[in-house]
Amino acid sequence: MIILLKPNYAPKQLEQLKAWIKNKGLEIHASEGAQATILGLIGDTSVVDIDLVSSMAIVETVKRIQEPYKAANRKFHPDDTIIEVGDGTNTAKIGGGHFVMIAGPCSVESEEQILEVAQKVKESGAHILRGGAFKPRTSPYSFQGMEGEGIDLLVKAKKVTGLPLISEIMDISQLHYFDEIDVIQVGARNMQNFLLLKELGKTDKPILLKRGFANTIQEWLMSAEYIMSRGNKKVILCERGIRTIEQATRNTLDLSAIPVIKEFSHLPIVVDPSHATGYAKYVKPMSLAAVAAGADGLMIEVHNDPCAALCDGPQSITPDAFDKLAQGVDIIREGIKKAQKL
Amino acid sequence: MIILLKPNYAPKQLEQLKAWIKNKGLEIHASEGAQATILGLIGDTSVVDIDLVSSMAIVETVKRIQEPYKAANRKFHPDDTIIEVGDGTNTAKIGGGHFVMIAGPCSVESEEQILEVAQKVKESGAHILRGGAFKPRTSPYSFQGMEGEGIDLLVKAKKVTGLPLISEIMDISQLHYFDEIDVIQVGARNMQNFLLLKELGKTDKPILLKRGFANTIQEWLMSAEYIMSRGNKKVILCERGIRTIEQATRNTLDLSAIPVIKEFSHLPIVVDPSHATGYAKYVKPMSLAAVAAGADGLMIEVHNDPCAALCDGPQSITPDAFDKLAQGVDIIREGIKKAQKL
Amino acid sequence: MIILLKPNYAPKQLEQLKAWIKNKGLEIHASEGAQATILGLIGDTSVVDIDLVSSMAIVETVKRIQEPYKAANRKFHPDDTIIEVGDGTNTAKIGGGHFVMIAGPCSVESEEQILEVAQKVKESGAHILRGGAFKPRTSPYSFQGMEGEGIDLLVKAKKVTGLPLISEIMDISQLHYFDEIDVIQVGARNMQNFLLLKELGKTDKPILLKRGFANTIQEWLMSAEYIMSRGNKKVILCERGIRTIEQATRNTLDLSAIPVIKEFSHLPIVVDPSHATGYAKYVKPMSLAAVAAGADGLMIEVHNDPCAALCDGPQSITPDAFDKLAQGVDIIREGIKKAQKL
Amino acid sequence: MIILLKPNYAPKQLEQLKAWIKNKGLEIHASEGAQATILGLIGDTSVVDIDLVSSMAIVETVKRIQEPYKAANRKFHPDDTIIEVGDGTNTAKIGGGHFVMIAGPCSVESEEQILEVAQKVKESGAHILRGGAFKPRTSPYSFQGMEGEGIDLLVKAKKVTGLPLISEIMDISQLHYFDEIDVIQVGARNMQNFLLLKELGKTDKPILLKRGFANTIQEWLMSAEYIMSRGNKKVILCERGIRTIEQATRNTLDLSAIPVIKEFSHLPIVVDPSHATGYAKYVKPMSLAAVAAGADGLMIEVHNDPCAALCDGPQSITPDAFDKLAQGVDIIREGIKKAQKL
Repeated sequence: MIILLKPNYAPKQLEQLKAWIKNKGLEIHASEGAQATILGLIGDTSVVDIDLVSSMAIVETVKRIQEPYKAANRKFHPDDTIIEVGDGTNTAKIGGGHFVMIAGPCSVESEEQILEVAQKVKESGAHILRGGAFKPRTSPYSFQGMEGEGIDLLVKAKKVTGLPLISEIMDISQLHYFDEIDVIQVGARNMQNFLLLKELGKTDKPILLKRGFANTIQEWLMSAEYIMSRGNKKVILCERGIRTIEQATRNTLDLSAIPVIKEFSHLPIVVDPSHATGYAKYVKPMSLAAVAAGADGLMIEVHNDPCAALCDGPQSITPDAFDKLAQGVDIIREGIKKAQKL
Repeated sequence: MIILLKPNYAPKQLEQLKAWIKNKGLEIHASEGAQATILGLIGDTSVVDIDLVSSMAIVETVKRIQEPYKAANRKFHPDDTIIEVGDGTNTAKIGGGHFVMIAGPCSVESEEQILEVAQKVKESGAHILRGGAFKPRTSPYSFQGMEGEGIDLLVKAKKVTGLPLISEIMDISQLHYFDEIDVIQVGARNMQNFLLLKELGKTDKPILLKRGFANTIQEWLMSAEYIMSRGNKKVILCERGIRTIEQATRNTLDLSAIPVIKEFSHLPIVVDPSHATGYAKYVKPMSLAAVAAGADGLMIEVHNDPCAALCDGPQSITPDAFDKLAQGVDIIREGIKKAQKL
Repeated sequence: MIILLKPNYAPKQLEQLKAWIKNKGLEIHASEGAQATILGLIGDTSVVDIDLVSSMAIVETVKRIQEPYKAANRKFHPDDTIIEVGDGTNTAKIGGGHFVMIAGPCSVESEEQILEVAQKVKESGAHILRGGAFKPRTSPYSFQGMEGEGIDLLVKAKKVTGLPLISEIMDISQLHYFDEIDVIQVGARNMQNFLLLKELGKTDKPILLKRGFANTIQEWLMSAEYIMSRGNKKVILCERGIRTIEQATRNTLDLSAIPVIKEFSHLPIVVDPSHATGYAKYVKPMSLAAVAAGADGLMIEVHNDPCAALCDGPQSITPDAFDKLAQGVDIIREGIKKAQKL
Repeated sequence: MIILLKPNYAPKQLEQLKAWIKNKGLEIHASEGAQATILGLIGDTSVVDIDLVSSMAIVETVKRIQEPYKAANRKFHPDDTIIEVGDGTNTAKIGGGHFVMIAGPCSVESEEQILEVAQKVKESGAHILRGGAFKPRTSPYSFQGMEGEGIDLLVKAKKVTGLPLISEIMDISQLHYFDEIDVIQVGARNMQNFLLLKELGKTDKPILLKRGFANTIQEWLMSAEYIMSRGNKKVILCERGIRTIEQATRNTLDLSAIPVIKEFSHLPIVVDPSHATGYAKYVKPMSLAAVAAGADGLMIEVHNDPCAALCDGPQSITPDAFDKLAQGVDIIREGIKKAQKL
């Protein structure tokens, strides 16, 4: 961290600032010149509140050299994190070369629906079953999910198919529903629900953390840090598009986030092209693109009758389309393994 | 709501759709032409899930004519809502021509700090004291607020000055702390924390609902609708800037939201120029502009020692600067009353 | 400008870099420490290409302390620039406390139209008549303006009313049409048409430079610098909204740009609430807000029959509405003069 | 196009509107109901100015069913457009299954540089040589390109290597320099320089049209329409990233634009990952992702000494890195051909 001081500061102020910095366990490399005085901070600067420093009377500007996250930072953890999901015969691994295919309907709607979709996606090679029981909806008048009943139906589908489960939590108070859910999903709107993140940091379940639709990659990693700093290191990042000026797709899928995450963090990253694009017709090309960009997995909405889905129907694909997509993914994965070795 | 059907739909599908619409208590005005078939839905269409309709196999496109919110909609409530805050000698009214000045530090830091600021802003004409006890911070390593202790200090300041209190809630589990807080603030990051909104909808306290930094005005009103649809009609909207490509200010204050809200809703709207701009130096001009645009109030960060503030310091102004700002606001309010009558 | 070097650079590289910097006429204040080497550049760093420096092999990061613009920079020109428009009896001044009201139709459509609107806005106190002859339209099939004929009608209106004229140029090749136009407008889409800016920098006419709808304030000032660096110092900035996630208004009017511009530049800034909001109904409140924020002028679309206007009709106001707006502006201007003195 | 009228319109107004529509050569399918009157317009509605219609006094809202572009529209031209570049032995085809690799330095800097890079990229399989002679730079003090001299060096490189050339035009007045340039590039900042587009529409050279960094896909196609409506059908679209809230990459590469363009237009689309990401390290993964998403080509910045490049250096890759990238692209192209057949 480099601090540039304002010209004409009082020497006493500088002494106070230096004392404050040393008190954080950091060393100071000061360069006091005629035109500018610069302080270089050496040590673990993730404990320094950059907003606080920049608010100080004598500080002109502050610049981080190190990233503000530690547990999620590749510098301190060079090897890819590999996360294991499930405990039975259908254990899935994510990261470090292990690719995961997550599939299922946006919302659990009925036993018949979830069982049929689960069977179909398993046959096509999916490793984890997704299904929403608690649904964050913009309107209070829209379908809010089957809640506890939906969770029960997911668990039934797990018993029948053996597929591990992922489902979204919306509030700490719902945590007791998630005993048999293998991966807890934090939705885009909750990416900065810090109390929820802290609470999930105390569990030992893998957490799939979706990127907020107007959050930077750095903020996303800081939210992962909230979970990890409480002890739970099993964080899976999920890119699902950001809000931009483009209206042809619901959001803009930011695939550049994949190499950026790979550079700065050791955590696995999966991509959700269904929510990002909002259209079934764009799910396959964007899935293949995500694989080629280096994603560790995909999360795909699959519905046995997309047009009757109670929510988010237009973006769901059929089990048959999913089967073809999964085959395509295998082909591109083979290619990308070769291309990455070049 | 107008539904345009795809060409070449099956007559049976149309019958099913019509039955589904009538089941919602709506009437249908159908126009079946050679090139296109259009259905006009008449009645309370806020119960219709537009995503669901657009996902139907035979639907080309759907367009709302009415807004999707009802309780917050000016059409069904032409008069401005006036919200009363406080129960003692310092009652404040907001909306319908009543202007409110909310002031105080970003975070409660000490008894000395909150008492001094409270006294000072009261002398300058503030009606409500603000102060954060629970702080949503991007980094888990940043100061997270004094929590319960901070609330106690606020209550002490209320006893001394008589000023009603506003403070931010971050999670349902904190609700018990807010017994003596007069207005509960929902922060920008929680604007779509729907469970929290539902829970606050069951209380009878005024709720100050900040706009999410990447949310549209319509989504904001839908979040107000979440609170109001549960029974609590006392919602105060607070514009605090949105994320844009501009970096010279922390966010871009969207003052156009004021006349837009005034057109579509009867709820009062206040403006927070401190968080929006992120710089003390821009707080006064943007406060005056907000008043001229028709805001029902301002929320201003005031700190007795801005440069030592533990967070958000650069955007806080001193009590003395606040005093001048308050005088300026009075002058512009007089002017705007005349200008609006023209 | 501060340059932070990468660790482990070769001493020879540093020598080359230092030679390159000195060659630009700058002094270097170097601080070579165990952990980091920092170079402070002293002198006129606006000649340094920051992209070039950051691309150098041994450079970790570069940070400007000074702004990259010089002619437009308040530091080197503390007094407000005052620009005079017109040469006859109706001369207008802009900046340094002089407020200008620019009004007229979006497009010139007919002699009757432009003469009627010109007369009316003059009676209400407008200082400059606006009217588009060359229209940048998204579609090649939309009305592209009356071109030379439109310019002729504007000049006729000037002869009748005495009002100075402002009109938009779209390309260097149109410059010969602008002999009798008093202020040349550069539209948002041309803010970074650098050849056009250079050419206009060789004229001695005032240039109204609209902000690009996705450009930062710094980029805007750099575009002003293009004009000024060629000799023409008469640049009027015009804020007209930026593209954001909000859809209730056409663009988001960024009124914070006013105090930001006032801080960093001496150039006058006017506001165009008509194009920014896209709705006649929001023009008055946003005009008053712009005045309260400290704008040096307004540019308002006025049409004698807004609903029949050939383009941009919904955002035009009637001459009668303009008259009331102008009265309102006078009231707020009186207020703001008092409020700024506090 | 569907027009919804306001309630309580005057019958005479409706007659006028109907006459105006019929005058455009369109048929009207009217549905006059108790609650709403709807007009369906049948025929070539691309001639209708939607802004004009929505500005009419009796119109509530207008919705296009057809896209506003015709020449660029896949509906009227179902087969992919294939564009041939060059006339000699190194002719390249783009679109309809033909993939093009465009490579070269951002700016032409010297004969040695352009010849060396040209030779190298040709050996690695590049089909077209890129190189900027006219450079749009934010600052008037930055390097503006070698201009005519740069063009001459490009032509020399063409003579030596046989590679066709692409270079950027900034203004109509530069057109005479482009006689021996095979593809004229329109940069992002000029995407809506409509006079330039019209002028290029009169040439018979292929035009590479970069997407504006804050423009929607529809606006981009409308700009293609400007060129095509003047006669030149040889438009190559180039996605190069849009401005978003993310700062880890220079812009956000919108790969979803590829399937969207493929759906709505028959024009080929290439991707420029160098400018989009702004970092050499992200060029390879994003290139492979673009290929997997279905791009018809890539445009890659290659420099023999990236760190000394006079501009945009950090995003250039070395000839050696380009060679590996080109091999990777071949592998993924093989894969994607199989995956698309599924």
